[in-house]
Amino acid sequence: MTTQKPIRIAAIGLNHPHIYGMTRAVVNAGAELVALYAEEDDLAAAYQKAFPQVQRVADRRQILEDRSIELVVSAIVPDVRAATAIDVMRHGKDVMVDKPGLITLEQLADVRRVQAESGQIFSVCFSERFEVRAAARASELVAAGAIGKVVQTIGLGPHSLGLNPRPDWFFQRRRYGGILCDIGAHQCDQFLHFTGSTEAEVVASHIANHANPDKPELEDFGEMLLRGNRGSGYVRVDWYTPKGLGTWGDGRLTILGTDGYIELRKYVDIAGRPGADHLFLVNQKETRYVDCSDQELSYGRRLLDDIRNRTETAMPQAHCFLATELALKAEAQASRLVAG
Amino acid sequence: MTTQKPIRIAAIGLNHPHIYGMTRAVVNAGAELVALYAEEDDLAAAYQKAFPQVQRVADRRQILEDRSIELVVSAIVPDVRAATAIDVMRHGKDVMVDKPGLITLEQLADVRRVQAESGQIFSVCFSERFEVRAAARASELVAAGAIGKVVQTIGLGPHSLGLNPRPDWFFQRRRYGGILCDIGAHQCDQFLHFTGSTEAEVVASHIANHANPDKPELEDFGEMLLRGNRGSGYVRVDWYTPKGLGTWGDGRLTILGTDGYIELRKYVDIAGRPGADHLFLVNQKETRYVDCSDQELSYGRRLLDDIRNRTETAMPQAHCFLATELALKAEAQASRLVAG
Repeated sequence: MTTQKPIRIAAIGLNHPHIYGMTRAVVNAGAELVALYAEEDDLAAAYQKAFPQVQRVADRRQILEDRSIELVVSAIVPDVRAATAIDVMRHGKDVMVDKPGLITLEQLADVRRVQAESGQIFSVCFSERFEVRAAARASELVAAGAIGKVVQTIGLGPHSLGLNPRPDWFFQRRRYGGILCDIGAHQCDQFLHFTGSTEAEVVASHIANHANPDKPELEDFGEMLLRGNRGSGYVRVDWYTPKGLGTWGDGRLTILGTDGYIELRKYVDIAGRPGADHLFLVNQKETRYVDCSDQELSYGRRLLDDIRNRTETAMPQAHCFLATELALKAEAQASRLVAG
Repeated sequence: MTTQKPIRIAAIGLNHPHIYGMTRAVVNAGAELVALYAEEDDLAAAYQKAFPQVQRVADRRQILEDRSIELVVSAIVPDVRAATAIDVMRHGKDVMVDKPGLITLEQLADVRRVQAESGQIFSVCFSERFEVRAAARASELVAAGAIGKVVQTIGLGPHSLGLNPRPDWFFQRRRYGGILCDIGAHQCDQFLHFTGSTEAEVVASHIANHANPDKPELEDFGEMLLRGNRGSGYVRVDWYTPKGLGTWGDGRLTILGTDGYIELRKYVDIAGRPGADHLFLVNQKETRYVDCSDQELSYGRRLLDDIRNRTETAMPQAHCFLATELALKAEAQASRLVAG
């Protein structure tokens, strides 16, 4: 390992703070962060403070045309992520984008085509799985057969609107893509991953703005019912995290197997244990709490391996596209709820 | 209160052990249990042991034609509950049946007609709400505005197949009606109650037998997505409770409001607090655990009031029918899942 040259990476677009976790995932696994392109001076300055080794370039082509750079990470505004990723792949580099990786079915078709033509990796950093230690432990437990055959998942992704000041694009539907497209994409990823489904469809979906009439383009609630070739799934997302919670969201995942179930309380165990990464396992043998704070996260390491070896160990490429497609279709076909 | 004559009640059909909770709900509220009709000697003997005051009669007409009896409780086999209830109402008595109150849309139409013609009360004992102290507390909190406007509910009703020996009819679909009709009915009741919906439809539903191929008519999994005029809802039920849980099911209800949410862990707090009736409240002010073990249950008392006063305080009649209708429609239109 130590004899390998580090993989050189760069960042293009820092518009969502997710860029920090994305960068750290690969830098902590040994990548060398060399360059940065961002239009916004304030975002660039903050990033350079966190990563003093990075050099800001004035033109993104300085990154795209630098053949020594193998991976670009991007949290540019969602509506231009697809175009950015396509540009990166056409320049012979792999790309990791923030979720949603893209926001229309047309963009998805374009990205799929360019990815296939170029053979580059298009990875969406599904942080609610890749950066959650409890989810990593759940993957191991499921693979080991701890709950029998998985037949269903329920993913709840409440989020906090107020936690950080949101930029204008956050409230413009044509730029963020809608709630199911955006934070729903995480949930589609987890559904496919934990059921092991390689084919799936959206059975039904709802969106709503129940609580934010002053933000007419915001969808503050969404839900969907999914059916895969290896199980079904339900997803609910919202922007209602109340101030009394103390963190940004009570994210949950319940994985139902024929011989048990696993519940993740990812970020908080309400009125319970302190900290995050709580896993509860109930099976034919026992009911057990598992503290996952020491669990290894492997996404960054595996992605660097994949870049070297042209493999798909961090996430199968088809899975990445299917998770994105489900979220987009759920959004496109959603009925809008207007509760009385 | 003490000057009122007690309401005289009788039981017809003891085929599900729910009859004990149903009987106690009204006996504890002051009803006088006077008569019992059941074909099965063993079931009758057990019931008489629990309620020594009750007299077994040889012909159900002795109950139906006794004008001093005002209420009949019945946990007869589901496929004949509707006919039993109709008989009771046509004899000028109110009736409380176990859930599912009936198992076909034709039966529902008949019961609705006879109820309207007779003016008698047709009540289904939705024990997962009426007999759960945490649910009663949740009703109070929601009514007091603790979580703002309720917009959605998620009800999870896992059950244990093995907890008591199940009779043959339990595995015969034409007799129990299917999983969404049966244990799903509880969840439809809670969805309507907590969202306050008076109109609702089934958006999509699934049934499956994932784990019990030796019981071909058993549906061991079901889920449905609901849309009401005051909120939406998701329901998942199954017969997978694993042996390591230590009780019959990890029943949960999450009530999502625009200013907070309530989670009920009705029967167990896995790897957490002992006992049952756990309520968790998160709102703009706080995250709080509420032990509901002292909460009053009011269904029995209110039903006796309704019998006296011809009111609908225990449960609106239209709500009882709509909850039943949703469960029946979800069952009738369900896609059958076959996971690979």
